[in-house]
Amino acid sequence: KYNMEKENLSVVLHSQGDLRLEQRPIPEPGPNEVLLQMHSVGICGSDVHFWQNGRIGDYVVKKPMVLGHEASGRVVKVGSAVKNLKEGDRVAVEPGVPREIDEFFKSGKYNLSPTIFFCATPPDDGNLCRFYKHSANFCYKLPDNVTYEEGALIEPLSVAIHACRRAGVTLGSSVLICGAGPIGLVCLLVAKAMGASQVVITDLSADRLVMAKELGADFPLTVKREDGPEELAKRVEGLLGAQPHITIECTGVESSVQTAIYATRPGGVVVLVGLGAAMTTVPLLNAALREVDIRGVFRYCNTQPNRNWSLFPKYPFIVHLNYIGRISIVL
Amino acid sequence: KYNMEKENLSVVLHSQGDLRLEQRPIPEPGPNEVLLQMHSVGICGSDVHFWQNGRIGDYVVKKPMVLGHEASGRVVKVGSAVKNLKEGDRVAVEPGVPREIDEFFKSGKYNLSPTIFFCATPPDDGNLCRFYKHSANFCYKLPDNVTYEEGALIEPLSVAIHACRRAGVTLGSSVLICGAGPIGLVCLLVAKAMGASQVVITDLSADRLVMAKELGADFPLTVKREDGPEELAKRVEGLLGAQPHITIECTGVESSVQTAIYATRPGGVVVLVGLGAAMTTVPLLNAALREVDIRGVFRYCNTQPNRNWSLFPKYPFIVHLNYIGRISIVL
Amino acid sequence: KYNMEKENLSVVLHSQGDLRLEQRPIPEPGPNEVLLQMHSVGICGSDVHFWQNGRIGDYVVKKPMVLGHEASGRVVKVGSAVKNLKEGDRVAVEPGVPREIDEFFKSGKYNLSPTIFFCATPPDDGNLCRFYKHSANFCYKLPDNVTYEEGALIEPLSVAIHACRRAGVTLGSSVLICGAGPIGLVCLLVAKAMGASQVVITDLSADRLVMAKELGADFPLTVKREDGPEELAKRVEGLLGAQPHITIECTGVESSVQTAIYATRPGGVVVLVGLGAAMTTVPLLNAALREVDIRGVFRYCNTQPNRNWSLFPKYPFIVHLNYIGRISIVL
Amino acid sequence: KYNMEKENLSVVLHSQGDLRLEQRPIPEPGPNEVLLQMHSVGICGSDVHFWQNGRIGDYVVKKPMVLGHEASGRVVKVGSAVKNLKEGDRVAVEPGVPREIDEFFKSGKYNLSPTIFFCATPPDDGNLCRFYKHSANFCYKLPDNVTYEEGALIEPLSVAIHACRRAGVTLGSSVLICGAGPIGLVCLLVAKAMGASQVVITDLSADRLVMAKELGADFPLTVKREDGPEELAKRVEGLLGAQPHITIECTGVESSVQTAIYATRPGGVVVLVGLGAAMTTVPLLNAALREVDIRGVFRYCNTQPNRNWSLFPKYPFIVHLNYIGRISIVL
Repeated sequence: KYNMEKENLSVVLHSQGDLRLEQRPIPEPGPNEVLLQMHSVGICGSDVHFWQNGRIGDYVVKKPMVLGHEASGRVVKVGSAVKNLKEGDRVAVEPGVPREIDEFFKSGKYNLSPTIFFCATPPDDGNLCRFYKHSANFCYKLPDNVTYEEGALIEPLSVAIHACRRAGVTLGSSVLICGAGPIGLVCLLVAKAMGASQVVITDLSADRLVMAKELGADFPLTVKREDGPEELAKRVEGLLGAQPHITIECTGVESSVQTAIYATRPGGVVVLVGLGAAMTTVPLLNAALREVDIRGVFRYCNTQPNRNWSLFPKYPFIVHLNYIGRISIVL
Repeated sequence: KYNMEKENLSVVLHSQGDLRLEQRPIPEPGPNEVLLQMHSVGICGSDVHFWQNGRIGDYVVKKPMVLGHEASGRVVKVGSAVKNLKEGDRVAVEPGVPREIDEFFKSGKYNLSPTIFFCATPPDDGNLCRFYKHSANFCYKLPDNVTYEEGALIEPLSVAIHACRRAGVTLGSSVLICGAGPIGLVCLLVAKAMGASQVVITDLSADRLVMAKELGADFPLTVKREDGPEELAKRVEGLLGAQPHITIECTGVESSVQTAIYATRPGGVVVLVGLGAAMTTVPLLNAALREVDIRGVFRYCNTQPNRNWSLFPKYPFIVHLNYIGRISIVL
Repeated sequence: KYNMEKENLSVVLHSQGDLRLEQRPIPEPGPNEVLLQMHSVGICGSDVHFWQNGRIGDYVVKKPMVLGHEASGRVVKVGSAVKNLKEGDRVAVEPGVPREIDEFFKSGKYNLSPTIFFCATPPDDGNLCRFYKHSANFCYKLPDNVTYEEGALIEPLSVAIHACRRAGVTLGSSVLICGAGPIGLVCLLVAKAMGASQVVITDLSADRLVMAKELGADFPLTVKREDGPEELAKRVEGLLGAQPHITIECTGVESSVQTAIYATRPGGVVVLVGLGAAMTTVPLLNAALREVDIRGVFRYCNTQPNRNWSLFPKYPFIVHLNYIGRISIVL
Repeated sequence: KYNMEKENLSVVLHSQGDLRLEQRPIPEPGPNEVLLQMHSVGICGSDVHFWQNGRIGDYVVKKPMVLGHEASGRVVKVGSAVKNLKEGDRVAVEPGVPREIDEFFKSGKYNLSPTIFFCATPPDDGNLCRFYKHSANFCYKLPDNVTYEEGALIEPLSVAIHACRRAGVTLGSSVLICGAGPIGLVCLLVAKAMGASQVVITDLSADRLVMAKELGADFPLTVKREDGPEELAKRVEGLLGAQPHITIECTGVESSVQTAIYATRPGGVVVLVGLGAAMTTVPLLNAALREVDIRGVFRYCNTQPNRNWSLFPKYPFIVHLNYIGRISIVL
């Protein structure tokens, strides 16, 4: 259909609202890189946000940037020093690649490396294009039974894996998830896969909770904007028969963060996944005196399957993601 | 059928091979205790072993002892200070009750308290009898949807929960289980419930591995007595495509412990569940240089569901235990 | 001087501002308790606060309460079931004694047990009196080289031990301590004893920082009320050459909590020791995106030396506490 | 004295017993490397062992290899992509540099990466030479108050830091160290720096224990070859008044490993630092039933001071190392 030698159609954001489909040169992989022919690239909320607002917090689009970071593709060229991949391999792409071997990388938290490259976070180009080069060490070979679409969905899944790990979800955990959007739902799936026994999930929209119920939520709880955080916390306790060990906050809304703190059991954990305003007013004293830890997440690290593709207990839950409203573009 | 005021038929081991069914007085619960009318009590391998050998290691039957420690029953009398239970409650029994508030108890490892009471470990009486008193703090109310039989099976399940926790099984772990007897199988169930992605399970008996396969094992592996540990380790690596993160050794056989060490990935964990001889010859240098940790388990702690019965993700796997050859006696 | 059979002079707070010295009956120890003749009892800020305000947060003095919880004494009577102590033993008192063997106690976090007894927290009586009975399991024998005064000071030291443990202070940690009052100073001592390499400590009072310097602070930093949190964070980074791994906030002041978050290194920890207002406005987004964990402390657990009095590396630092303005009353 | 353009005098081991001083070409640093003019290089036991035996376990000297891996030097040339260092910087060298960004590196355990480069482990050349190139990311700038000799000694210190971290030494730990050779002594220093309250250290040589006493050991214990492990364990318990929380085994001798297991408190840790025979006979059942974990160490990772040189609480203890028999060659 297109001429590989000449074409690299790319979705480029020039500035707020100015999104263009344009040709870019096909890049040449360096010694430790591979060139990928992209297959599936999900459209993340952040892609849409950059397009419509030109920025997310301190990340501002100042020069044209290719969008896309939930991606999979096929290796079409291999750098001279690459050992783990060969031409024809189908791979999932981990979009964050540390540029420096700093203290964060050395200690296993490369997501916190301040100079990390990350697809479609300005000024780094993403991979919503036909040809894209990437560090071979951050491409992961897909086994035959995993499709490209599923491969691309490992990226949003990684957010939930990192959040549930930071939360310490394990066999028997009771979990409150605030918000049943795509990230709330994928946190639900991962929490269940890690052994959570009971999950309450909240949302303003009863429709979203229907989906949550289908995906395994034990207690969908419709909330209203005017519900008080302390009263909501009580309702959660009522549903579970006890306060949840863990709360995963996926809305970023101040009152929901407050609910998360009030609701969690002493000695438990609140994980902040949703992004809110720069300053937030919270019952910190309540959290402190009950030793409820508050932990954020910044992207993820070490979530991709290893060599033996052993990360995920079951693929069905990746497939479920297709139902939750994400658009996967087959290039 | 029997007269509650007078009868407390009990299975009492007097000495090696001398097992008697006899009447014992119905005990009177202390202030923090409850009197239970026992319903289901599993027969553990250790009960049989005490009966046939009169001892397990340093634990020697020196005076008559009631057998049984996998138990559930109904509360028929409540001590004056008990708050968490009332007459009529159906409960599972945690057989180990610390006698002293020592450093182990205070730091959450009460199973290691050297003076702990434990049902049917000499000289402490078990609960294979009609009436039995127990610390109310170590009885756990069963919800309506859990049967007495299932309640009794929480005890063997606890061994696996403790082993998998000590192993650090989590989402994506690849696990080798040595031995597909009851404890190996229950470790398989728990590892899967905690998110293990791939489980290899070995046994000398192909029949046992059929059951393992049914219960979710990815790679059943029949072994022979003459197989060399290093060669077996290679076969495990071949099946998984990489060495397992975790090995749970459930046989206690020296060569199997050796296999466990050779097989495990650098930085991984070997958990010793099976009990072997006092002295064992193992490739400790191999373990040390690859930082493969070796961890034992002694019974368990904190494995029973809390107030809200939130421990277990799904009850079906408790039911599975019924199939694996345990005898549950309804008294 | 006084008649043991008749006298138990006690410092009793009847209500806000109404503090009385009065005789109370000498209590009779229960089976698991010891009767102590008190020797040294420190006056904590909370004792003064209850006296002057009649309450701390939700804890309200509603009936007469003996003050005091930083205490040591001599065993003069032993309950029938007590094994670890005998008459004449000199002991330090751990003022918190769990009343129930609940999930918190069983899992090693007995300080979080909601029904815990705690000396001089209403309505529980403290030990600023001549005779006091206490759970023998929460009295710790002092070795000959530790004085009663030092024994009483283990209680405030415990706050710092718990805070530094929750912070994860270890060899090479760089630490910011906000506030150089008694608790800030004792956190400094403990952080250094755990291997912290560099400690910045802040205060409004330059005088307090002189003491901090003497006690081993590497960088005393005088701050002003009007200093901006982000600018202070920069100054801390300048002093250390990098952001601190850990911040221990001991003031409870909102702007100081903000400074704590901004100042801490990505992947680091902020521990909240100081108590502030019910609601606090903080840069939670900044903390979340840099994975700076926020952890509170509620009293402490497992901080007392074990049987072999092995907790403290050196006693000199307990003695230092005497210099930091605490009053120890010899009864 | 020598001509930098032409000379690179190097200590080269050709084969067992065949050690030569010879000229080698001065290497050219790659983009991410620096060229160092070496200053101080310690002679490790392994250097001597390779010289005298031509091998250590599976590591065999098959072609000429430069010795030396405890090193410091001055940067004389900087690769094009290097940012963290400049000409003239004085640096300590971390001799292990991972060659691949594999799962071990990504998860913070780069010491376990099977393809790691390591100075003077065949076939990789060491740095006992005048000029040596090394990855800039694994060179650490020395502050002005740290000498080159001290810088070189960070390498052996790292072994102890890694061992004490793996052991979990913290404030109040009681520790048994088996063996008072250089590594035993440096473990003693690090354990004390991390807050260990009481350290027993054993050796066959009373002379070595004099040094241990000077360096802070609380209980030096002279042992004899014929002492039984269980009896020795009892003596250790007697000295401490309780079993130690942690044992650091630095001899590799089978009977000492047995002592280590018997001696350690239930729930404690044995760390294996000394290297013994391929197969070791140990009381594994005793360890398992008391949940005494057995952990090895392979070199170390993340032990070098960060940017702000914040790793070490006090330099005096590095200086102490000079006394313990190591030879530091100033090139």
